[in-house]
Amino acid sequence: MAIRAAIFDVFGTVVDWRRGIAGAVAPLFDAKGIAHPPEAFADAWRAEYQPGMEQVRSGNRGYVALDRLHRENLDRALAACNLCDAFDSTERDALNQAWGRLPAWQDSVPGISAIARYCPVAPCSNGSIALMTRLARFAGLPWDCILGADIAEAYKPQPEVYRASTAALGLMPNQVLMVAAHNADLAAARAVGLRTAFVPRRREHGSGQSTDLDPTEDWDLVAADITDLAGQIRHR
Amino acid sequence: MAIRAAIFDVFGTVVDWRRGIAGAVAPLFDAKGIAHPPEAFADAWRAEYQPGMEQVRSGNRGYVALDRLHRENLDRALAACNLCDAFDSTERDALNQAWGRLPAWQDSVPGISAIARYCPVAPCSNGSIALMTRLARFAGLPWDCILGADIAEAYKPQPEVYRASTAALGLMPNQVLMVAAHNADLAAARAVGLRTAFVPRRREHGSGQSTDLDPTEDWDLVAADITDLAGQIRHR
Repeated sequence: MAIRAAIFDVFGTVVDWRRGIAGAVAPLFDAKGIAHPPEAFADAWRAEYQPGMEQVRSGNRGYVALDRLHRENLDRALAACNLCDAFDSTERDALNQAWGRLPAWQDSVPGISAIARYCPVAPCSNGSIALMTRLARFAGLPWDCILGADIAEAYKPQPEVYRASTAALGLMPNQVLMVAAHNADLAAARAVGLRTAFVPRRREHGSGQSTDLDPTEDWDLVAADITDLAGQIRHR
Repeated sequence: MAIRAAIFDVFGTVVDWRRGIAGAVAPLFDAKGIAHPPEAFADAWRAEYQPGMEQVRSGNRGYVALDRLHRENLDRALAACNLCDAFDSTERDALNQAWGRLPAWQDSVPGISAIARYCPVAPCSNGSIALMTRLARFAGLPWDCILGADIAEAYKPQPEVYRASTAALGLMPNQVLMVAAHNADLAAARAVGLRTAFVPRRREHGSGQSTDLDPTEDWDLVAADITDLAGQIRHR
């Protein structure tokens, strides 16, 4: 069965959220004389990511877009780092925009562009349509459409997100390739019937990363990066 | 209030559906020795468009994507033209793909590309995400994301479609410009609070067109075509 579309995890797989958030925070911390390491603050903010979504996944809370969760998570991260008094609400709103201004990994734009010559490409992220649209314009990501959490009103790894994304393309799950740097994301996609491609991002969490260094299952494709993946798709 | 996004009606406004459908039908009619004029058949197929969606709008039927309505409408159009026996089911499925291979009006790609330099651009069409994705790839439409019927599970001119599309962008209605060649589409968008731009397509229905030749209300912008509209947006 030929691959008729490729859909991508975004945070970590396509863009370097840690460098982007640390880079947005650093000048603000400098200006305010805050000594907290920017990378550590990025990690603290991201540490609230899964718990925030879990409130929605568990049914304790109706679906709200990730933009709002990121903003709430920022309040929690600032509290966790003893920085509650450092930023007012307007400054926090502005800082929250940083999730739409993250740098792509070097191979992402050429790799996705090459894959787009063969089939439609789209994010299948927990980011909202609004956030994915801003991020794509910032980072030059050549998506054909935007899939993921918003169209399913659910958060990965819930199966509805993969199902709604393939259905929105008018395709069967086994015609769609899910690309991610996270084994758990691919396991959830595979459980719904999608094809899977693993692209390691061994510095997503910095130099001490201990997770997702290698594939943990026999994914359909394993590539060094997205440009390498494009070559593998071309030669299938 | 600045325009933060521009969303577009597609069939008629951005692409020439009548020429596209007639062009797809013509060689098939030739091959089968059918004398029916291709343009008249395109009109017959399109004549089923509003009645098909009205079943959903009225609540008589749950939301189904336009791809399926187009396929059902094809059966009705063939019957209306006494061509029931001319095409089998497989041929009809193939012909239905023609809605994803429609030519853009000459000014659409340069005009939308120019507007995209200022703000995000997206279709707000009754076409599905799948259909809009295929059409964008075929016609080279540089959308940033795909909005419209699918994300609202409703059909224009129902207000939910405009509301869901602006909400998906994270914007207020008065920050979004709706661009259409159809006065009724703009009236529905304005009723929800969107800004409006009229671009006439006086040959959408062929040389005898009698509707939507001119703006019928004081739309926020009236342009000769989408390239002209881009210039007006730039100089606001």
